[in-house]
Amino acid sequence: VVDMDELDQRHRVVVIGAGFGGLFATKALKRADVDVTLINGTTHHLFQPLLYQVATGILSEGEIAVPIREILGKQRNARVLLGWVDHVDVAARTVTATAPGLSYTVEYDTLIVAAGASQSYFGNDKFAEFAPGMKSIDDALELRGRIFNAFEMAELETDPAAIERWLTFVVVGAGATGVEMAGQIAELAHRTLPGQYRRINPKQARVILLDALDRVLPAFGDHLSTQGLRQLHRIGVEVELETKVVDVDATGIEVDTKSGHRRIESMTKMWAAGVAAPGLSRQIAEAAGAETDRAGRIKVEPDCTVPGHPEIFAVGDMMALDQLPGVAQVAIQSGRYAARQVKRRLAHEGPDKPFHYFDKGSMATISRFSAVASIGKFRFAGLLAWFLWLGVHLLYLVGFKNRLTTVLHWTVSFIGRGRSERVATVQQIFARTALKETGDTGGPAPSGPPKRLS
Amino acid sequence: VVDMDELDQRHRVVVIGAGFGGLFATKALKRADVDVTLINGTTHHLFQPLLYQVATGILSEGEIAVPIREILGKQRNARVLLGWVDHVDVAARTVTATAPGLSYTVEYDTLIVAAGASQSYFGNDKFAEFAPGMKSIDDALELRGRIFNAFEMAELETDPAAIERWLTFVVVGAGATGVEMAGQIAELAHRTLPGQYRRINPKQARVILLDALDRVLPAFGDHLSTQGLRQLHRIGVEVELETKVVDVDATGIEVDTKSGHRRIESMTKMWAAGVAAPGLSRQIAEAAGAETDRAGRIKVEPDCTVPGHPEIFAVGDMMALDQLPGVAQVAIQSGRYAARQVKRRLAHEGPDKPFHYFDKGSMATISRFSAVASIGKFRFAGLLAWFLWLGVHLLYLVGFKNRLTTVLHWTVSFIGRGRSERVATVQQIFARTALKETGDTGGPAPSGPPKRLS
Repeated sequence: VVDMDELDQRHRVVVIGAGFGGLFATKALKRADVDVTLINGTTHHLFQPLLYQVATGILSEGEIAVPIREILGKQRNARVLLGWVDHVDVAARTVTATAPGLSYTVEYDTLIVAAGASQSYFGNDKFAEFAPGMKSIDDALELRGRIFNAFEMAELETDPAAIERWLTFVVVGAGATGVEMAGQIAELAHRTLPGQYRRINPKQARVILLDALDRVLPAFGDHLSTQGLRQLHRIGVEVELETKVVDVDATGIEVDTKSGHRRIESMTKMWAAGVAAPGLSRQIAEAAGAETDRAGRIKVEPDCTVPGHPEIFAVGDMMALDQLPGVAQVAIQSGRYAARQVKRRLAHEGPDKPFHYFDKGSMATISRFSAVASIGKFRFAGLLAWFLWLGVHLLYLVGFKNRLTTVLHWTVSFIGRGRSERVATVQQIFARTALKETGDTGGPAPSGPPKRLS
Repeated sequence: VVDMDELDQRHRVVVIGAGFGGLFATKALKRADVDVTLINGTTHHLFQPLLYQVATGILSEGEIAVPIREILGKQRNARVLLGWVDHVDVAARTVTATAPGLSYTVEYDTLIVAAGASQSYFGNDKFAEFAPGMKSIDDALELRGRIFNAFEMAELETDPAAIERWLTFVVVGAGATGVEMAGQIAELAHRTLPGQYRRINPKQARVILLDALDRVLPAFGDHLSTQGLRQLHRIGVEVELETKVVDVDATGIEVDTKSGHRRIESMTKMWAAGVAAPGLSRQIAEAAGAETDRAGRIKVEPDCTVPGHPEIFAVGDMMALDQLPGVAQVAIQSGRYAARQVKRRLAHEGPDKPFHYFDKGSMATISRFSAVASIGKFRFAGLLAWFLWLGVHLLYLVGFKNRLTTVLHWTVSFIGRGRSERVATVQQIFARTALKETGDTGGPAPSGPPKRLS
């Protein structure tokens, strides 16, 4: 362990990332005699589990992305810096980050690496353009624009095949994120949009959920997989299992199934299939002589430290430990664990027990009034699970920040049929801000002569 | 006038633009025996007077941008098409519009042109990059990102001159929009952000409001100009009048004043100084043999029609008539007037009285609890005017759509100190979506070696 007595200044903790792991580690150091520097690539802490609700117009981005400075404003031993961490020098104990137009270096005595995970296309990064992931506010706003614009474009098309292409939505990956996304697009098409179009019927939209595995929601166990599948079918989602994506382009997606190769024509695809640790993870592992797993996560000691570097903790989605799932609770608990170790060391309390993940359970909504939840030995499906989901999220939101607007938006969407946040920007529609009154749309040029819409 | 008896089908009205003019014209045709096609470049109707509240983090974009389809869903004689109108063929009576990847043509019997106004840089379009305007959701989100990021960048800088540049905000144009914008940035700096930074003090931010004229809020008359100026001074806005902008670049703005030429160092500039009709206005005027005024608006007959073309109405910011101001009420009333003429003609009722604008008054907020209002012969300033502003907007919002979330967000900002909608996307911060875990920030490259932040 680090000898604290060598230091003639306050112990400096640098935390990389303000997701669940980094934020909760920082908060847990509130009363510690340390200086904390939290570095993040955006100015907000993102409540990622509700990202799909921004992508489908239920919530505004501000409701799930809270300014880090607002959360930590009163924590006087913490400072927040905007920056994208490029490099950790494990020998010099410095972190280098880039902000627009400048870069900077900060020194650490203890480093907590909590940079999360990014979407993985399993080596096919070119898919990203055609099938955005579901990890950031950027992703959610991009998908929101694509989903709502698809209905607009269908309304303008005259060719039946083109209309069908615009009204086919493909979600890749049937874990919680993919299931929730597919469910909400189906609700949008069946409950919110009907009556608002004149030429198309939004109810004819197809929502296809693909997965390479043989079940949906595999992490929830056999019983809830079956229940989840039944609920998805009931709201009209087409689930195609044992289906592997081999290519994605602007107008469709190519898949291999048991019965052979097939193409699905679809303008709107989204990717919720895999995650990988950011490049920073490998950089740190290499510099520290540590190993990474297949997803690029650092193989840590039982106390979440990088082997040979007790001063570096990797937490949440950046640590490979006991095959723990990539969920918020793992990040929160490991972040807090790391903070506790820092405090123990400063108090010379000696080594703690290894990190132990306490599984509080998991849940996924499928549509309004319908969810699955797994808590301890108990399995819930349907309405009861949905109320559990609602209760847990209301509790969390009230503790986190008093978010009455969120409750109102849920009322609008779940009791009513509305979606309060449907804005697509001109940039999203026409692919470029430069569009003003010039008629220069910047987007794809019209192909062929003008269609006559009578 | 048009002879309706020639037609063997329902009278076709095409409305260009879903701003106040176009939307209210369409709604006024609800019970008319016509088919209305409303074409707009975005999918939302924008409540432009509150755009500054999105730009300063008070409201979400969904709260001021409502889906046109939601508003018109139940109006069965109206259809909505996404598209940017490039061309009107006044002889063939067709409108051609562009959507992403396709263009289309629709025929009209009556055309109502209500495409609004865009920002005018008085021939200096290159200013737009450095000083975005205040006309669209794109503009508001762009400014929101720039304003909040400026404080982040100031926190990272070590050079005092650079910090000052980041903490200097310049608003060009002291009409209602500019005044409201300047006031809200001052409130942000003085009420919301203090306590959230460690190296800078947000209270040291300077907000400079420039105008070429010798007074603020000229449309409100002498008394309220003086009151407005006093209120601006009280909240710390520096007002520089008789100051003409001659150049704008990335790091500052060059002005000519009575005492000579001067440069203001500022990273964050915004433009609320002038408007011009879109290029479409001149295209229609030329084709119809009509004249335009200096701002490019079509000089219309007293009944809002284009001379020689009784079947074409130009309303709101696209018509030049009686030097009417470019405000929502002019657009609403002229849009409704045009709709009424269509109905009168179909009923063979003969010509109506010329369009007469009924001035319901105008108001501008300066900060919370402080505004100016001019209603009939009455002038109000301060708290009373602010409550008038609040009352009118609450009434409007309740009539328009039940927007409880807006009231909550106002409570957070005006009673509390919060700003609920502060999100900047990674794209906004780093100028490119491509930034993922690669460390390729896409933005301006760091200049010089990393700064050491201790």
